[in-house]
Amino acid sequence: MKAILDCIPCFLQQALDAVRMASDDTRVHERVMHRVLAVVQEMTFQESPPQMGALIHRIIREQVGHPDPYHRAKQYYNSFARKLLPRLRRLRDDSTEPFAMAVRLAVAANIIDFALSARLDEDLVLQSLEQATSQPLAIDRLAALQEAVQRASSILYLADNAGEIVLDLLLVEMLPRGVVTVAVRGAPVINDATTEDALFAGLDKIANIIDNGTDIPGTVIGECSQQLRQLFASADLVISKGQGNYETLSDEQREIYHLLKVKCPLVARDLGCPVGGVVVMRRQGGMVT
Amino acid sequence: MKAILDCIPCFLQQALDAVRMASDDTRVHERVMHRVLAVVQEMTFQESPPQMGALIHRIIREQVGHPDPYHRAKQYYNSFARKLLPRLRRLRDDSTEPFAMAVRLAVAANIIDFALSARLDEDLVLQSLEQATSQPLAIDRLAALQEAVQRASSILYLADNAGEIVLDLLLVEMLPRGVVTVAVRGAPVINDATTEDALFAGLDKIANIIDNGTDIPGTVIGECSQQLRQLFASADLVISKGQGNYETLSDEQREIYHLLKVKCPLVARDLGCPVGGVVVMRRQGGMVT
Repeated sequence: MKAILDCIPCFLQQALDAVRMASDDTRVHERVMHRVLAVVQEMTFQESPPQMGALIHRIIREQVGHPDPYHRAKQYYNSFARKLLPRLRRLRDDSTEPFAMAVRLAVAANIIDFALSARLDEDLVLQSLEQATSQPLAIDRLAALQEAVQRASSILYLADNAGEIVLDLLLVEMLPRGVVTVAVRGAPVINDATTEDALFAGLDKIANIIDNGTDIPGTVIGECSQQLRQLFASADLVISKGQGNYETLSDEQREIYHLLKVKCPLVARDLGCPVGGVVVMRRQGGMVT
Repeated sequence: MKAILDCIPCFLQQALDAVRMASDDTRVHERVMHRVLAVVQEMTFQESPPQMGALIHRIIREQVGHPDPYHRAKQYYNSFARKLLPRLRRLRDDSTEPFAMAVRLAVAANIIDFALSARLDEDLVLQSLEQATSQPLAIDRLAALQEAVQRASSILYLADNAGEIVLDLLLVEMLPRGVVTVAVRGAPVINDATTEDALFAGLDKIANIIDNGTDIPGTVIGECSQQLRQLFASADLVISKGQGNYETLSDEQREIYHLLKVKCPLVARDLGCPVGGVVVMRRQGGMVT
């Protein structure tokens, strides 16, 4: 998915929100906005929004002078998610359809996204989780996903955000043991999950963890490590979490199951879903299947 | 009032909304956004938002290749307002406080602003007018304004938008005859009222009409015609309509009555009012009095 003109004001708003979260120094805010304007001006609209996001967050890290300015905020949401985990695990296990409930909760946790929600707080997360248990899915390929899981002898699970990744456990626990690789970002970028977050979640106890080798808040296959590229090519099943991964993978040829919460009007238009919609989608060769 | 970092994404959104309203050609949209990014990058934050607005709309007019791309839309809202006029005039005249009702309706009409409301439509205008009749004023210096009107032997009335200017008639009719000068913009800029709109409203029958000599969607005294500057210095009473005039006049020394509908969070913060608030304020030397 390529960025469109509507992304321009949004990038600048995201940059402003993000740098304010990372620093209190108004001179830093000004320098970041100035540099982001220059980068946005060079946009060719051949880039996906997360590729532009990567450039913006490189500027923020450089100007703030910290390699991971959202580290504390990521830890906060990791801990928050871990506190919710026992209750949500019971909810899943007591459900008549535990797999479906696990998927719904893992998608609901995709709301923990600093890039798209300056309004993010605990209440918004709780509200998203609450809705997830009953809200009709905007796109519903749950049954197909469940079948694919049963058949798969290798699964690549592309994680998205810190905090969210703790609740991904609810779903990864439902996947066959010994076949799952969870891929995280190769370096900190906004609140995206890195190896540290996967370890905090304890995912290493039930899955293989790899990092994708990039600081793009999505999965641009051509930029990823060879290990990730090989797994992406060979896995029986690829499960992709979140908008960033969707935006960067939507035109890939191979079959991918996308689990995401729709958080921007551009993605909503692309999918024919409302903002806020919960999507469990199968996509192949750029087409919904 | 000077622009702040929060204005950057807003300028770009306004530019996109405005050029899409003015042209269907996506290449024009792209060229405008590219040029606006360059202009915004040069911002010193010493400018008021309407001064940046003037630069943006010069770019749009140039790229669209039309000196007044919103001409038809302005005519539409002028005609719409004229249809409402008889009913609103009765509402004013049947009111227990006709002057207050005239002010309230004239401020409510300030919602007709293409710069700030991509969602503008007839319903929004009707809703604003409806609320105006009963909504408590966010800042209420109505009594002081009415006294000042009674004492004034020269009044400068700074108009804001097309459409709105037709409903300004409701208030200008309540001012003493033979003492009022209505000032409009010196050239088309977005949907701001020009001489053509003042004549359509019929204001020339009850007031003197002048243009301020600039294409800034506000009143930057130093940029205005000598005639406007003289009147601004000498008038017993200056009544200023709308946000653009407020943003450019808020630091002026002389006493000004500002009548506006609050439409942006920056102005809301400056005034300590909610967005949507209806303001009748007296200001002098940059202070609310």
